[in-house]
Amino acid sequence: MSDLLDAAALDTLFRTARTHYKWQERPVPDTKLAELYDLLKFGPTSANSSPARFVFLRTAEGKAKLKPALSEGNLEKTMTAPVIAIVAHDMKFFDELPKLFPHADARSWFAGNDALAEVTAFRNGSLQGAYLILAARAIGLDAGPMSGFDNAKVDEAFFAGTSWKSNFLVNLGYGDESGLFPRSPRLSFDEAARLE
Amino acid sequence: MSDLLDAAALDTLFRTARTHYKWQERPVPDTKLAELYDLLKFGPTSANSSPARFVFLRTAEGKAKLKPALSEGNLEKTMTAPVIAIVAHDMKFFDELPKLFPHADARSWFAGNDALAEVTAFRNGSLQGAYLILAARAIGLDAGPMSGFDNAKVDEAFFAGTSWKSNFLVNLGYGDESGLFPRSPRLSFDEAARLE
Repeated sequence: MSDLLDAAALDTLFRTARTHYKWQERPVPDTKLAELYDLLKFGPTSANSSPARFVFLRTAEGKAKLKPALSEGNLEKTMTAPVIAIVAHDMKFFDELPKLFPHADARSWFAGNDALAEVTAFRNGSLQGAYLILAARAIGLDAGPMSGFDNAKVDEAFFAGTSWKSNFLVNLGYGDESGLFPRSPRLSFDEAARLE
Repeated sequence: MSDLLDAAALDTLFRTARTHYKWQERPVPDTKLAELYDLLKFGPTSANSSPARFVFLRTAEGKAKLKPALSEGNLEKTMTAPVIAIVAHDMKFFDELPKLFPHADARSWFAGNDALAEVTAFRNGSLQGAYLILAARAIGLDAGPMSGFDNAKVDEAFFAGTSWKSNFLVNLGYGDESGLFPRSPRLSFDEAARLE
Protein backbone atom coordinates (compact mmCIF):
# COMPACT_ATOMS: atom_id res chain seq x y z
CA MET A 1 0.00 0.00 0.00
CA SER A 2 1.17 3.46 -0.90
CA ASP A 3 1.26 6.49 1.32
CA LEU A 4 -1.40 9.08 0.68
CA LEU A 5 -0.45 12.29 -1.10
CA ASP A 6 -1.44 15.51 0.65
CA ALA A 7 -3.99 17.97 -0.72
CA ALA A 8 -1.34 20.30 -2.18
CA ALA A 9 0.21 17.43 -4.15
CA LEU A 10 -3.20 16.36 -5.51
CA ASP A 11 -3.80 19.97 -6.58
CA THR A 12 -0.39 20.13 -8.29
CA LEU A 13 -0.98 16.90 -10.21
CA PHE A 14 -4.69 17.09 -10.96
CA ARG A 15 -7.09 19.53 -9.34
CA THR A 16 -5.56 22.93 -10.06
CA ALA A 17 -3.03 21.89 -12.72
CA ARG A 18 -3.71 23.40 -16.15
CA THR A 19 -2.61 22.92 -19.72
CA HIS A 20 -0.41 25.91 -20.55
CA TYR A 21 -0.23 27.98 -23.74
CA LYS A 22 1.98 30.90 -22.72
CA TRP A 23 5.45 30.51 -21.28
CA GLN A 24 7.72 32.48 -18.98
CA GLU A 25 11.17 33.24 -20.33
CA ARG A 26 12.70 30.80 -17.92
CA PRO A 27 14.78 28.01 -19.39
CA VAL A 28 14.50 24.31 -18.55
CA PRO A 29 17.98 22.87 -18.04
CA ASP A 30 18.84 19.48 -19.50
CA THR A 31 19.33 18.14 -15.98
CA LYS A 32 15.62 18.74 -15.41
CA LEU A 33 14.78 16.60 -18.46
CA ALA A 34 16.95 13.80 -17.09
CA GLU A 35 15.13 14.13 -13.75
CA LEU A 36 11.80 13.97 -15.63
CA TYR A 37 12.78 10.80 -17.48
CA ASP A 38 14.07 9.17 -14.30
CA LEU A 39 10.55 9.44 -12.84
CA LEU A 40 8.37 8.64 -15.84
CA LYS A 41 10.40 5.53 -16.72
CA PHE A 42 9.00 3.82 -13.60
CA GLY A 43 5.36 4.03 -14.74
CA PRO A 44 3.96 0.59 -15.55
CA THR A 45 3.75 -0.78 -19.11
CA SER A 46 2.63 -4.11 -20.50
CA ALA A 47 5.38 -6.70 -19.87
CA ASN A 48 7.60 -3.75 -18.88
CA SER A 49 7.83 -3.13 -22.63
CA SER A 50 8.50 0.62 -22.22
CA PRO A 51 7.86 1.36 -25.92
CA ALA A 52 7.90 5.18 -25.64
CA ARG A 53 10.79 7.15 -27.04
CA PHE A 54 11.31 10.88 -26.49
CA VAL A 55 12.97 13.68 -28.41
CA PHE A 56 13.41 16.86 -26.38
CA LEU A 57 13.71 19.92 -28.63
CA ARG A 58 15.45 22.88 -26.91
CA THR A 59 17.47 24.49 -29.68
CA ALA A 60 16.32 26.84 -32.45
CA GLU A 61 17.49 24.25 -34.99
CA GLY A 62 15.52 21.44 -33.37
CA LYS A 63 12.34 23.50 -33.18
CA ALA A 64 12.75 24.68 -36.78
CA LYS A 65 12.74 21.03 -37.89
CA LEU A 66 9.36 20.59 -36.18
CA LYS A 67 7.76 23.84 -37.36
CA PRO A 68 6.47 22.74 -40.81
CA ALA A 69 4.51 19.91 -39.15
CA LEU A 70 2.55 22.15 -36.76
CA SER A 71 -0.99 23.31 -37.45
CA GLU A 72 -1.48 27.08 -37.57
CA GLY A 73 -3.36 27.26 -34.26
CA ASN A 74 -0.61 25.38 -32.40
CA LEU A 75 2.34 27.28 -33.85
CA GLU A 76 2.94 30.11 -31.39
CA LYS A 77 2.34 28.24 -28.14
CA THR A 78 4.69 25.50 -29.33
CA MET A 79 7.53 27.53 -30.83
CA THR A 80 7.70 29.73 -27.69
CA ALA A 81 7.90 26.77 -25.29
CA PRO A 82 11.37 26.30 -23.75
CA VAL A 83 11.22 22.57 -24.55
CA ILE A 84 9.02 20.55 -26.88
CA ALA A 85 8.90 16.83 -26.17
CA ILE A 86 8.05 14.57 -29.08
CA VAL A 87 6.42 11.51 -27.51
CA ALA A 88 7.10 8.66 -29.92
CA HIS A 89 7.20 4.88 -29.71
CA ASP A 90 9.48 2.26 -31.17
CA MET A 91 7.56 -0.22 -33.32
CA LYS A 92 10.41 -2.66 -32.61
CA PHE A 93 10.22 -2.17 -28.85
CA PHE A 94 10.11 -5.96 -28.48
CA ASP A 95 13.80 -6.23 -29.32
CA GLU A 96 14.49 -4.79 -25.83
CA LEU A 97 12.34 -7.37 -24.04
CA PRO A 98 15.11 -9.89 -23.33
CA LYS A 99 16.60 -7.13 -21.16
CA LEU A 100 13.39 -5.50 -19.86
CA PHE A 101 11.44 -8.70 -19.13
CA PRO A 102 14.00 -11.43 -18.52
CA HIS A 103 11.57 -13.88 -16.84
CA ALA A 104 10.03 -15.16 -20.08
CA ASP A 105 10.48 -15.07 -23.84
CA ALA A 106 8.26 -12.00 -24.17
CA ARG A 107 9.88 -10.98 -27.45
CA SER A 108 8.20 -13.92 -29.18
CA TRP A 109 4.74 -12.63 -28.14
CA PHE A 110 5.18 -9.58 -30.38
CA ALA A 111 7.81 -10.32 -33.05
CA GLY A 112 5.93 -11.38 -36.18
CA ASN A 113 2.56 -10.20 -34.81
CA ASP A 114 2.43 -6.68 -36.26
CA ALA A 115 -1.12 -5.93 -35.16
CA LEU A 116 -0.39 -6.79 -31.51
CA ALA A 117 2.95 -4.95 -31.59
CA GLU A 118 1.31 -1.83 -33.04
CA VAL A 119 -1.56 -1.65 -30.55
CA THR A 120 0.85 -2.39 -27.67
CA ALA A 121 3.29 0.33 -28.77
CA PHE A 122 0.54 2.92 -29.18
CA ARG A 123 -1.34 2.09 -25.97
CA ASN A 124 1.72 1.85 -23.74
CA GLY A 125 3.55 4.72 -25.43
CA SER A 126 0.47 6.84 -24.68
CA LEU A 127 0.49 5.71 -21.04
CA GLN A 128 4.12 6.79 -20.85
CA GLY A 129 3.20 10.15 -22.38
CA ALA A 130 0.69 10.61 -19.57
CA TYR A 131 3.38 9.66 -17.02
CA LEU A 132 5.56 12.37 -18.58
CA ILE A 133 2.82 14.99 -18.16
CA LEU A 134 2.23 14.14 -14.49
CA ALA A 135 5.93 13.70 -13.72
CA ALA A 136 6.57 17.15 -15.21
CA ARG A 137 3.99 18.67 -12.89
CA ALA A 138 5.45 16.74 -9.97
CA ILE A 139 8.85 18.40 -10.45
CA GLY A 140 7.45 21.89 -10.89
CA LEU A 141 7.19 22.10 -14.67
CA ASP A 142 4.04 22.96 -16.59
CA ALA A 143 2.93 20.91 -19.58
CA GLY A 144 0.99 21.66 -22.74
CA PRO A 145 0.22 18.37 -24.50
CA MET A 146 -1.25 18.45 -27.99
CA SER A 147 -1.88 16.35 -31.07
CA GLY A 148 -2.64 19.10 -33.60
CA PHE A 149 0.23 18.39 -36.00
CA ASP A 150 1.12 16.23 -38.97
CA ASN A 151 2.53 12.94 -37.66
CA ALA A 152 3.84 11.89 -41.08
CA LYS A 153 5.88 15.10 -41.40
CA VAL A 154 7.35 14.64 -37.92
CA ASP A 155 8.24 11.04 -38.70
CA GLU A 156 9.92 12.13 -41.94
CA ALA A 157 11.87 14.96 -40.28
CA PHE A 158 12.99 13.09 -37.15
CA PHE A 159 12.58 9.33 -37.60
CA ALA A 160 13.22 8.55 -41.29
CA GLY A 161 14.80 5.13 -41.71
CA THR A 162 14.06 4.11 -38.10
CA SER A 163 11.30 2.14 -36.38
CA TRP A 164 10.23 5.16 -34.24
CA LYS A 165 6.82 6.76 -34.88
CA SER A 166 5.52 10.03 -33.42
CA ASN A 167 2.50 9.93 -31.12
CA PHE A 168 1.90 13.40 -29.65
CA LEU A 169 3.74 16.50 -28.43
CA VAL A 170 4.13 17.99 -24.95
CA ASN A 171 5.30 21.57 -24.59
CA LEU A 172 7.29 21.97 -21.37
CA GLY A 173 8.35 25.00 -19.36
CA TYR A 174 7.14 27.37 -16.70
CA GLY A 175 3.66 28.55 -17.64
CA ASP A 176 2.51 32.15 -17.70
CA GLU A 177 -0.87 32.08 -15.96
CA SER A 178 -2.02 35.19 -17.85
CA GLY A 179 -2.47 32.88 -20.86
CA LEU A 180 -5.00 30.62 -19.13
CA PHE A 181 -8.72 30.44 -19.90
CA PRO A 182 -11.23 29.35 -17.25
CA ARG A 183 -11.18 25.56 -16.87
CA SER A 184 -13.64 23.64 -19.03
CA PRO A 185 -16.15 21.28 -17.39
CA ARG A 186 -15.56 17.56 -16.93
CA LEU A 187 -17.99 14.65 -17.17
CA SER A 188 -19.56 13.61 -13.87
CA PHE A 189 -18.92 10.14 -12.43
CA ASP A 190 -22.35 8.99 -13.61
CA GLU A 191 -21.71 10.19 -17.15
CA ALA A 192 -18.32 8.50 -17.50
CA ALA A 193 -18.47 5.49 -15.18
CA ARG A 194 -20.66 2.77 -13.82
CA LEU A 195 -20.46 0.29 -10.96
CA GLU A 196 -21.15 -3.43 -11.40
CA MET B 1 4.20 26.90 -12.18
CA SER B 2 3.29 24.05 -9.90
CA ASP B 3 4.63 23.34 -6.45
CA LEU B 4 7.19 20.59 -6.21
CA LEU B 5 6.16 17.24 -4.79
CA ASP B 6 8.30 15.91 -1.94
CA ALA B 7 10.45 12.79 -2.18
CA ALA B 8 7.87 10.58 -0.45
CA ALA B 9 5.20 11.58 -2.98
CA LEU B 10 7.54 10.87 -5.91
CA ASP B 11 8.24 7.45 -4.40
CA THR B 12 4.51 6.75 -3.99
CA LEU B 13 3.73 7.69 -7.59
CA PHE B 14 6.81 6.44 -9.42
CA ARG B 15 10.01 5.36 -7.74
CA THR B 16 8.91 2.68 -5.30
CA ALA B 17 5.38 2.06 -6.65
CA ARG B 18 4.87 -1.44 -8.02
CA THR B 19 2.33 -3.29 -10.11
CA HIS B 20 0.52 -5.64 -7.75
CA TYR B 21 -0.58 -9.23 -8.29
CA LYS B 22 -1.65 -10.31 -4.79
CA TRP B 23 -4.26 -8.47 -2.76
CA GLN B 24 -5.03 -7.97 0.90
CA GLU B 25 -8.57 -8.87 1.96
CA ARG B 26 -9.37 -5.22 2.46
CA PRO B 27 -12.31 -3.86 0.50
CA VAL B 28 -12.32 -0.66 -1.56
CA PRO B 29 -15.50 1.30 -0.79
CA ASP B 30 -17.43 2.93 -3.63
CA THR B 31 -16.67 6.33 -2.12
CA LYS B 32 -12.99 5.66 -2.87
CA LEU B 33 -13.83 5.03 -6.54
CA ALA B 34 -15.70 8.34 -6.69
CA GLU B 35 -12.65 10.04 -5.13
CA LEU B 36 -10.45 8.33 -7.75
CA TYR B 37 -12.61 9.55 -10.62
CA ASP B 38 -12.74 13.08 -9.21
CA LEU B 39 -8.95 13.27 -9.55
CA LEU B 40 -8.34 11.48 -12.84
CA LYS B 41 -11.03 13.48 -14.64
CA PHE B 42 -8.80 16.58 -14.42
CA GLY B 43 -5.96 15.05 -16.47
CA PRO B 44 -5.60 16.76 -19.85
CA THR B 45 -7.09 15.33 -23.05
CA SER B 46 -7.19 16.63 -26.61
CA ALA B 47 -9.84 19.40 -26.82
CA ASN B 48 -10.94 18.27 -23.35
CA SER B 49 -12.56 15.35 -25.16
CA SER B 50 -12.38 13.03 -22.15
CA PRO B 51 -13.18 9.91 -24.19
CA ALA B 52 -12.46 7.34 -21.45
CA ARG B 53 -15.30 5.46 -19.83
CA PHE B 54 -14.91 3.24 -16.79
CA VAL B 55 -16.72 0.19 -15.43
CA PHE B 56 -15.76 -0.68 -11.86
CA LEU B 57 -16.43 -4.35 -11.08
CA ARG B 58 -16.81 -5.01 -7.34
CA THR B 59 -19.47 -7.74 -7.15
CA ALA B 60 -19.14 -11.47 -7.78
CA GLU B 61 -21.68 -11.11 -10.61
CA GLY B 62 -19.71 -8.32 -12.29
CA LYS B 63 -16.44 -10.22 -12.06
CA ALA B 64 -18.07 -13.41 -13.36
CA LYS B 65 -19.11 -11.51 -16.51
CA LEU B 66 -15.46 -10.63 -17.10
CA LYS B 67 -13.95 -14.03 -16.30
CA PRO B 68 -14.36 -15.77 -19.72
CA ALA B 69 -12.40 -12.92 -21.37
CA LEU B 70 -9.31 -13.29 -19.17
CA SER B 71 -6.22 -15.17 -20.26
CA GLU B 72 -5.19 -18.07 -17.99
CA GLY B 73 -2.13 -16.27 -16.59
CA ASN B 74 -4.16 -13.22 -15.56
CA LEU B 75 -7.08 -15.08 -14.00
CA GLU B 76 -6.16 -15.36 -10.34
CA LYS B 77 -4.63 -11.94 -9.82
CA THR B 78 -7.67 -10.36 -11.43
CA MET B 79 -10.49 -12.37 -9.87
CA THR B 80 -9.02 -11.83 -6.39
CA ALA B 81 -8.72 -8.05 -6.77
CA PRO B 82 -11.28 -6.10 -4.73
CA VAL B 83 -12.11 -3.97 -7.77
CA ILE B 84 -11.39 -4.42 -11.47
CA ALA B 85 -11.63 -1.26 -13.56
CA ILE B 86 -12.42 -1.73 -17.24
CA VAL B 87 -10.83 1.27 -18.98
CA ALA B 88 -12.90 1.83 -22.11
CA HIS B 89 -13.54 4.71 -24.48
CA ASP B 90 -16.62 6.00 -26.20
CA MET B 91 -16.17 6.04 -29.99
CA LYS B 92 -18.86 8.76 -30.03
CA PHE B 93 -17.05 10.89 -27.44
CA PHE B 94 -17.45 13.87 -29.77
CA ASP B 95 -21.16 14.12 -28.99
CA GLU B 96 -20.13 15.53 -25.57
CA LEU B 97 -17.89 18.23 -27.06
CA PRO B 98 -20.52 20.99 -27.19
CA LYS B 99 -20.54 20.69 -23.38
CA LEU B 100 -16.85 19.85 -22.79
CA PHE B 101 -15.33 22.33 -25.27
CA PRO B 102 -17.85 25.14 -25.67
CA HIS B 103 -15.39 27.64 -27.24
CA ALA B 104 -15.52 26.13 -30.75
CA ASP B 105 -17.44 23.62 -32.85
CA ALA B 106 -15.05 20.82 -31.91
CA ARG B 107 -17.69 18.15 -32.60
CA SER B 108 -17.35 18.84 -36.33
CA TRP B 109 -13.61 18.02 -36.23
CA PHE B 110 -14.40 14.39 -35.40
CA ALA B 111 -17.96 13.57 -36.50
CA GLY B 112 -17.73 11.93 -39.93
CA ASN B 113 -13.94 11.42 -39.63
CA ASP B 114 -13.84 7.89 -38.24
CA ALA B 115 -10.05 7.49 -38.48
CA LEU B 116 -9.37 10.68 -36.49
CA ALA B 117 -12.11 9.86 -33.97
CA GLU B 118 -10.71 6.37 -33.44
CA VAL B 119 -7.09 7.41 -32.91
CA THR B 120 -8.20 10.28 -30.63
CA ALA B 121 -10.40 7.99 -28.53
CA PHE B 122 -7.67 5.37 -28.16
CA ARG B 123 -4.80 7.81 -27.48
CA ASN B 124 -6.68 9.98 -25.01
CA GLY B 125 -8.54 7.09 -23.39
CA SER B 126 -5.11 5.54 -22.76
CA LEU B 127 -3.85 8.80 -21.23
CA GLN B 128 -6.86 8.76 -18.91
CA GLY B 129 -6.09 5.15 -18.00
CA ALA B 130 -2.63 6.28 -16.94
CA TYR B 131 -4.16 9.12 -14.91
CA LEU B 132 -6.30 6.48 -13.18
CA ILE B 133 -3.22 4.39 -12.28
CA LEU B 134 -1.35 7.37 -10.80
CA ALA B 135 -4.45 8.83 -9.11
CA ALA B 136 -5.05 5.43 -7.48
CA ARG B 137 -1.52 5.47 -6.07
CA ALA B 138 -1.99 9.07 -4.94
CA ILE B 139 -4.96 8.10 -2.74
CA GLY B 140 -3.30 5.05 -1.25
CA LEU B 141 -4.55 2.32 -3.56
CA ASP B 142 -2.36 -0.10 -5.47
CA ALA B 143 -2.91 -0.81 -9.15
CA GLY B 144 -2.34 -3.80 -11.40
CA PRO B 145 -2.88 -2.71 -15.01
CA MET B 146 -2.97 -5.38 -17.72
CA SER B 147 -4.02 -6.01 -21.28
CA GLY B 148 -3.88 -9.82 -21.34
CA PHE B 149 -7.55 -10.42 -22.15
CA ASP B 150 -9.92 -10.73 -25.10
CA ASN B 151 -11.20 -7.23 -25.90
CA ALA B 152 -13.95 -8.52 -28.21
CA LYS B 153 -15.36 -10.72 -25.43
CA VAL B 154 -15.36 -7.82 -22.97
CA ASP B 155 -17.08 -5.60 -25.52
CA GLU B 156 -19.72 -8.27 -26.14
CA ALA B 157 -20.31 -8.88 -22.41
CA PHE B 158 -20.37 -5.25 -21.26
CA PHE B 159 -20.81 -2.89 -24.22
CA ALA B 160 -23.02 -4.70 -26.78
CA GLY B 161 -25.17 -2.23 -28.70
CA THR B 162 -23.21 0.81 -27.43
CA SER B 163 -20.34 2.91 -28.79
CA TRP B 164 -18.04 1.98 -25.86
CA LYS B 165 -14.97 -0.18 -26.56
CA SER B 166 -12.65 -1.78 -24.00
CA ASN B 167 -9.01 -0.68 -23.87
CA PHE B 168 -7.31 -2.30 -20.86
CA LEU B 169 -7.97 -3.42 -17.28
CA VAL B 170 -6.65 -2.10 -13.96
CA ASN B 171 -6.96 -4.25 -10.86
CA LEU B 172 -7.37 -2.05 -7.79
CA GLY B 173 -7.01 -2.71 -4.08
CA TYR B 174 -4.45 -2.86 -1.33
CA GLY B 175 -1.52 -4.92 -2.52
CA ASP B 176 0.10 -7.76 -0.61
CA GLU B 177 3.83 -7.14 -0.94
CA SER B 178 4.61 -10.83 -0.52
CA GLY B 179 3.42 -11.25 -4.12
CA LEU B 180 6.03 -8.90 -5.57
CA PHE B 181 9.02 -9.88 -7.67
CA PRO B 182 12.18 -7.74 -7.80
CA ARG B 183 11.65 -4.74 -10.07
CA SER B 184 12.66 -5.20 -13.70
CA PRO B 185 15.17 -2.81 -15.27
CA ARG B 186 14.21 0.29 -17.25
CA LEU B 187 15.82 1.81 -20.33
CA SER B 188 18.39 4.52 -19.59
CA PHE B 189 17.82 8.10 -20.76
CA ASP B 190 20.24 7.57 -23.65
CA GLU B 191 18.42 4.44 -24.78
CA ALA B 192 14.96 5.99 -24.78
CA ALA B 193 15.53 9.70 -25.41
CA ARG B 194 17.60 12.23 -27.25
CA LEU B 195 18.15 15.98 -27.07
CA GLU B 196 17.98 18.27 -30.11
